[in-house]
Amino acid sequence: MKKNSVDRREFIKTSVNAAAGMMVGAGLPPRFMRPSSGQSTSNSPAKRSLKFSVIGVNHDHIYVQVEAARRGGGELVSFYAKEPELAAAFSKHYPNVKLAGSEKEILDDPSIKLILSASIPADRAPLGIEVMRHGKDFMVDKPGMTSLEQLAEVRATEKSTGRIYSIMYSERFENRATVRAGELVSAGAIGRVLQTIGTGPHRMNPTQRPPWFFERERYGGILCDIGSHQFDQFLYFTNSTKAEIVASQIGNLNHPQYPGVEDFGDVMLRGDHGTGYIRVDWFTPDGLATWGDGRLIVLGTDGYFEIRKNVDIAGRNLGSFLFQVDQKGTRYIDCQDVHLPYGERLINDVLDRTDTAMNQEHCFYAMELALNAEKQAQRIDRPR
Amino acid sequence: MKKNSVDRREFIKTSVNAAAGMMVGAGLPPRFMRPSSGQSTSNSPAKRSLKFSVIGVNHDHIYVQVEAARRGGGELVSFYAKEPELAAAFSKHYPNVKLAGSEKEILDDPSIKLILSASIPADRAPLGIEVMRHGKDFMVDKPGMTSLEQLAEVRATEKSTGRIYSIMYSERFENRATVRAGELVSAGAIGRVLQTIGTGPHRMNPTQRPPWFFERERYGGILCDIGSHQFDQFLYFTNSTKAEIVASQIGNLNHPQYPGVEDFGDVMLRGDHGTGYIRVDWFTPDGLATWGDGRLIVLGTDGYFEIRKNVDIAGRNLGSFLFQVDQKGTRYIDCQDVHLPYGERLINDVLDRTDTAMNQEHCFYAMELALNAEKQAQRIDRPR
Repeated sequence: MKKNSVDRREFIKTSVNAAAGMMVGAGLPPRFMRPSSGQSTSNSPAKRSLKFSVIGVNHDHIYVQVEAARRGGGELVSFYAKEPELAAAFSKHYPNVKLAGSEKEILDDPSIKLILSASIPADRAPLGIEVMRHGKDFMVDKPGMTSLEQLAEVRATEKSTGRIYSIMYSERFENRATVRAGELVSAGAIGRVLQTIGTGPHRMNPTQRPPWFFERERYGGILCDIGSHQFDQFLYFTNSTKAEIVASQIGNLNHPQYPGVEDFGDVMLRGDHGTGYIRVDWFTPDGLATWGDGRLIVLGTDGYFEIRKNVDIAGRNLGSFLFQVDQKGTRYIDCQDVHLPYGERLINDVLDRTDTAMNQEHCFYAMELALNAEKQAQRIDRPR
Repeated sequence: MKKNSVDRREFIKTSVNAAAGMMVGAGLPPRFMRPSSGQSTSNSPAKRSLKFSVIGVNHDHIYVQVEAARRGGGELVSFYAKEPELAAAFSKHYPNVKLAGSEKEILDDPSIKLILSASIPADRAPLGIEVMRHGKDFMVDKPGMTSLEQLAEVRATEKSTGRIYSIMYSERFENRATVRAGELVSAGAIGRVLQTIGTGPHRMNPTQRPPWFFERERYGGILCDIGSHQFDQFLYFTNSTKAEIVASQIGNLNHPQYPGVEDFGDVMLRGDHGTGYIRVDWFTPDGLATWGDGRLIVLGTDGYFEIRKNVDIAGRNLGSFLFQVDQKGTRYIDCQDVHLPYGERLINDVLDRTDTAMNQEHCFYAMELALNAEKQAQRIDRPR
């Protein structure tokens, strides 16, 4: 019954394989439509390059991660996945990239500088710690870890090794309207930011999910998992470095057949430079043409932005859309050609030991907030 | 610097006086464009009629209230305002309506069945109590009262007199897309309602506000005042009759020159049949073509509605717009011809002693929640 519904996995696969197509939402430019040869390509003479590998392909975000790193100058040289069917699927996208015999083979290879991972969420921190101990940097899908204990260990290892543990908060980094809004907010377009309201509705597609999707210990809870994007955006747009969780709720409101699932979560938070509200859920209905009608509203003293991240319902339809209202007027801002700098900055950071893609403490703190919100959340379940 | 900005007062005055114009947002059909003769008019042969008066014209909502009652069959026969300039302004709109010599003259007139008021908020409950003690019904602008003590006294008087104390929550009753959404939700269009997110941004226009706007004791605080609409909608759309305030915040974030103003407020609440989030503020910038880009998102198990109450920015522009996404598709629903039943139902309730316009306990409970949220709110003020 999914007429006109395109779930995110289909969307990404279509985008990587198709010879053409509009990639505004997923952030993949047309030249990556054809299966890659694995060689790095350069957009400009000055692009730097390094070799990277992938360990763990349990979530399709890995493709978005790989493409961001390749756009930034990285060369994907090998990968490892312990599940043969997942390894086979990954190989189809990158047929010239070597399947390593083990994680160890990759970790021990001194020519590889950066590891990307989208393994099962609860496995990411242990892997990332190993990666950092082997002198390499780590770029991982969100959530970057699934418990405060893991976060503490990751923080300690990152500090002692001086490596990078970068969590790809794709709903900001790979979303053109969000990137453009960030630039404009930093330039003072709406004055001082007072509040963010972020919603992250998602489509569940339970029949297409692996077992770990239904096991809370393995994905970390809804606020940790899909909520993490929202905490990143709250900190970034309010320019806050500290915040308290005013209140949080999680629940299984309508999926009693999947008791390990949390299908709803929301949070009020107060930062040192602004306040925020977050709501995430797994209720996107079949009648939406994409996986979720995510929004971000940034309220300032002198105006506001509304970002319709994936779709402008009954309007401009699929894509990433930015609306600005300020003291002078109301306008739609076309973001189709906005450059997504995360991948390039990350490659530079690996080479130069800098912090330009994302401040490391910000990266960790977004997860700290998410994990705390999850931990202290009051449960709201289906009414009796 | 208010190019293209139309504040609510101008919008209402223009609508009442103009010979033509699009009234979709404010809910006034074209036949009320000309100054009224004060005589009742009927849309249908079965419309009933009664005589009503106005006491207190301190807010321009009085015009929306009067027109709703007239559309419902009421005949405006007299009014009283103690401020001569306000009385003069009201008389211009209704030149054939008698200015009474005092409140008492109206209260003592047995032919008048219903009193409408938009007096200073803190004065409404004492007036309404007098109205009910004189055997008449009361239709008042929101907020209906400004303290829990006033609410308790109003409740007790309503109970002992059996009269009606109806608070016109205009952001629902006089907003076509919201009325239509209510009908569709009740019919099960999106399954069981899980959550509402309501935003009520407003334009301050400080130079056009009376002194009481800046005095908290007289308007009751932001959550009591403009927040009340949101509590009404939360209860109505989730079909809740009980709720707890999970957390609330109020603050003066950017108006230090008006220390009595609260320019921001937000609330998380949990009802017996759904949860909700509310954010209200006075930050609408000059570049918006109306007084506030209010939204309501109703999330259900099988879909969601988005209401853009006053404007569809850089889209369909001014008006009241409804968007529905469900298991079958995504659609825009044109609400230009939606009937607004509140006024007619209220007149019927006065004549028949029924409760069809709004359940009395719901009416009071929305204010109870608003007042409690205001009372227990944590203050967040401008960062140091």
